[in-house]
Amino acid sequence: MAHLLSTSCLIKLSSSHRPQSQPFRQCPTKCLTFFTLGASKYPFKRFVLQGRTQQAKCIVRAAVAPISQETPTQSSSGPQQNSSEPFKPKRVMVIGGDGYCGWATALHLSNKGYEVAIVDNLIRRHFDLQLGLDSLTPIASIHNRLRCWQSVTGKTIELYIGDICDFEFLSETFKSFEPDAVVHFGEQRSAPYSMIDRNRAVFTQHNNVIGTLNVLFAIKEFRDQCHLVKLGTMGEYGTPNIDIEEGYITITHNGRTDTLPFPKQASSFYHLSKVHDSNNIAFTCKAWGIRATDLNQGVVYGVRTDETEMHEELCNRLDYDAVFGTALNRFCVQAAVGHPLTVYGKGGQTRGYLDIRDTVQCVELAIANPAQPGEFRVFNQFTEQFSVNELASLVTKAGEKLGLDVKTISVPNPRVEAEEHYYNAKHTKLIELGLRPHLLSDSLLDSLLNFSIKFKDRVDTKQIMPSVSWKNIGVKPKTLAA
Amino acid sequence: MAHLLSTSCLIKLSSSHRPQSQPFRQCPTKCLTFFTLGASKYPFKRFVLQGRTQQAKCIVRAAVAPISQETPTQSSSGPQQNSSEPFKPKRVMVIGGDGYCGWATALHLSNKGYEVAIVDNLIRRHFDLQLGLDSLTPIASIHNRLRCWQSVTGKTIELYIGDICDFEFLSETFKSFEPDAVVHFGEQRSAPYSMIDRNRAVFTQHNNVIGTLNVLFAIKEFRDQCHLVKLGTMGEYGTPNIDIEEGYITITHNGRTDTLPFPKQASSFYHLSKVHDSNNIAFTCKAWGIRATDLNQGVVYGVRTDETEMHEELCNRLDYDAVFGTALNRFCVQAAVGHPLTVYGKGGQTRGYLDIRDTVQCVELAIANPAQPGEFRVFNQFTEQFSVNELASLVTKAGEKLGLDVKTISVPNPRVEAEEHYYNAKHTKLIELGLRPHLLSDSLLDSLLNFSIKFKDRVDTKQIMPSVSWKNIGVKPKTLAA
Repeated sequence: MAHLLSTSCLIKLSSSHRPQSQPFRQCPTKCLTFFTLGASKYPFKRFVLQGRTQQAKCIVRAAVAPISQETPTQSSSGPQQNSSEPFKPKRVMVIGGDGYCGWATALHLSNKGYEVAIVDNLIRRHFDLQLGLDSLTPIASIHNRLRCWQSVTGKTIELYIGDICDFEFLSETFKSFEPDAVVHFGEQRSAPYSMIDRNRAVFTQHNNVIGTLNVLFAIKEFRDQCHLVKLGTMGEYGTPNIDIEEGYITITHNGRTDTLPFPKQASSFYHLSKVHDSNNIAFTCKAWGIRATDLNQGVVYGVRTDETEMHEELCNRLDYDAVFGTALNRFCVQAAVGHPLTVYGKGGQTRGYLDIRDTVQCVELAIANPAQPGEFRVFNQFTEQFSVNELASLVTKAGEKLGLDVKTISVPNPRVEAEEHYYNAKHTKLIELGLRPHLLSDSLLDSLLNFSIKFKDRVDTKQIMPSVSWKNIGVKPKTLAA
Repeated sequence: MAHLLSTSCLIKLSSSHRPQSQPFRQCPTKCLTFFTLGASKYPFKRFVLQGRTQQAKCIVRAAVAPISQETPTQSSSGPQQNSSEPFKPKRVMVIGGDGYCGWATALHLSNKGYEVAIVDNLIRRHFDLQLGLDSLTPIASIHNRLRCWQSVTGKTIELYIGDICDFEFLSETFKSFEPDAVVHFGEQRSAPYSMIDRNRAVFTQHNNVIGTLNVLFAIKEFRDQCHLVKLGTMGEYGTPNIDIEEGYITITHNGRTDTLPFPKQASSFYHLSKVHDSNNIAFTCKAWGIRATDLNQGVVYGVRTDETEMHEELCNRLDYDAVFGTALNRFCVQAAVGHPLTVYGKGGQTRGYLDIRDTVQCVELAIANPAQPGEFRVFNQFTEQFSVNELASLVTKAGEKLGLDVKTISVPNPRVEAEEHYYNAKHTKLIELGLRPHLLSDSLLDSLLNFSIKFKDRVDTKQIMPSVSWKNIGVKPKTLAA
């Protein structure tokens, strides 16, 4: 797995580096760019860790300040708050902050006044390169994204580029940034990706489970009051024939009663990795007093958030391919290019969904209302349930209003899953914390369809049909060219 | 972790190699020793796998035949049985066959007429070296063990030395041996070991989860009718306040009913790794039609089995240290050397226990009565429940009969666990298959105590007190010298 795991890297940057191939406007503010290579306390160096040859690596702090500002913002938090005081998180580390949900969340938290650092190894972009895929939307480099954010808002987001599976790197980020909360999006997040071949299955479980273990150890060692906000998935529960509760269920059995973790029935190596994480985190809350919130997120749709709207260079990614694209986003892109909507099997598969604007809102609510020390809190993070057929029908109607001729086809289901089943999942805890949902609406569908039409020349229709089979996964490495 | 994982190795052996330092009798039969280095179909070679430099490795087939036998037994199974015929397993691969349960099981199965291969990377012996620990009993090298077994019984056990986390190695063993059943003991099996430091925690989860994933892929790819018999642990369930069922529980909730995986509450990184395995295996049974039996084993005690009794060079290991020793075995050794029995905390911790003679019987029953294709079958493998205080009391009484002055002390509990709790776990399925339990008896305790007295000069009392703390585990590598 070394080709995938050794992703910490030496980065050379200059202020003149700008993406030439993408039609971004220049940032509206005249900028001065700073890059601090290697936090001064922890100079970068070449080293060998655990017998595995590592690449030289460094912590990149990318900070872009207006000319009037003479020095880059430094990491400078006071000592960790005393646990007897009310816990008021200010400094939030967003692991995986260059990805779809992570990027929107990092900007949202920065906009809300949190001091934010992004930790990312940029492997999501590397997956696209390897598989011949691309976001529908052109996306700027993380470095230019952060420069633009600084120039638009005056706010700085720190950047640490490296792999959290490398504990030495992760330790340095903790010691340098001193987070009060860690939002952990930093996992391989595609079920089909985890089912491509043995290599990717093993990578997914190793990367996700070991990365999360490292985060737990880093919190215990360096910031024991730090609140872990971990992205799980509703897919951990599978599709039981009973109501799905939020993390726990009270069971009466043979005359005795206990409240136990809700049974999990995950259906891909990816979903399983999230179940493994949940179990590991629950144990460390009990054994070490870690405070953690597990956000079992549904399927996210949409692309725009208040912050990414501020400048086109802040635009989020939008995946429509059969590996990383999720149902509603994929359908909108299919409708825009005149490709039939691809319903897998009977289309009765029902799941929880949410707008990406609610993803960022939910994470913010979890951070602002932290779990108690030792508490393993589970929220089901979605706002509405839909079957695939219902989504296809909604997109068809919305497309017709825009003059699109939308067809639907049933394709053989590449997954192993129930195609008609009971599904009723609770999702009240985030509402109780103050979530105000953006329910799926005609205007959102119009917006997503228009967005897809705007970029339809970038669509590669060869990426649309499923090419990964749950049953046919094998041991030989696969190269999936689009 | 590479220092622990790269355990496939090049082995040079000659028939004159015998352990000099251990007082074994010579095998009673005049022997001729064969070593086939590299199965002819798959010559060993030097290669680089996944960018990580691998050591040269080979498959060692150690076969010892009487002089009258001219050629060593070759791997020669016919084509895989047609799935429409009744499944009659003959060839059993025992992964981890050099360990405590694995060695006893491999001999038992060989004695019962199965063709057996042991797959082992010998890392359990390496752990002892690293931690400064040793078995109470002197144990012969795996090579001499197998030579002795051949000379005593005329039966050959094949030997493949390597790491199942190395998929290329595992593939070769599958293609060479062609198992009908795989008994998988090949995991890091100590809860305290997994709680020594971050390195060992990560190693345990990586080693156990990825090794088992590889076994599942090997079965799917090379022997899709092969029955996986996987050692789990009763510790996966934790100590819920309701009866523990065998793998599944039927839940009625809000007027609907489903039978779901029994909720797990594991309490160490080791126990968690077994939960992760169980979830992964269950998924592959459903998605790929793998047939699997998960043996959730209780705490094993005893050392003698019919087969290890045949010759002292076949003697099993007996661990009494605080890392690998388990409650009853440890207490007997403590009693033998006049060390107070070390009860952790209040001593009300109740668990399922079984005699090692029942371990081998249970595995044989699971193999002889395989799971159906696609079935994920869970058996709770223990015969009786005891609290730690009850065990201490039994050992005290048995010791007094032998004239030993047995004291008990309560030591601070190094674990995070309930010390007084409800515990009632079902264990009927193996009885229904024909298990005839060896219940804990005075004679067994006498035997274990006398065994411990026999070897008491080998006891290192510095290994007895717990040195690993669930709460104090840190990120710095620890060296535990005895």
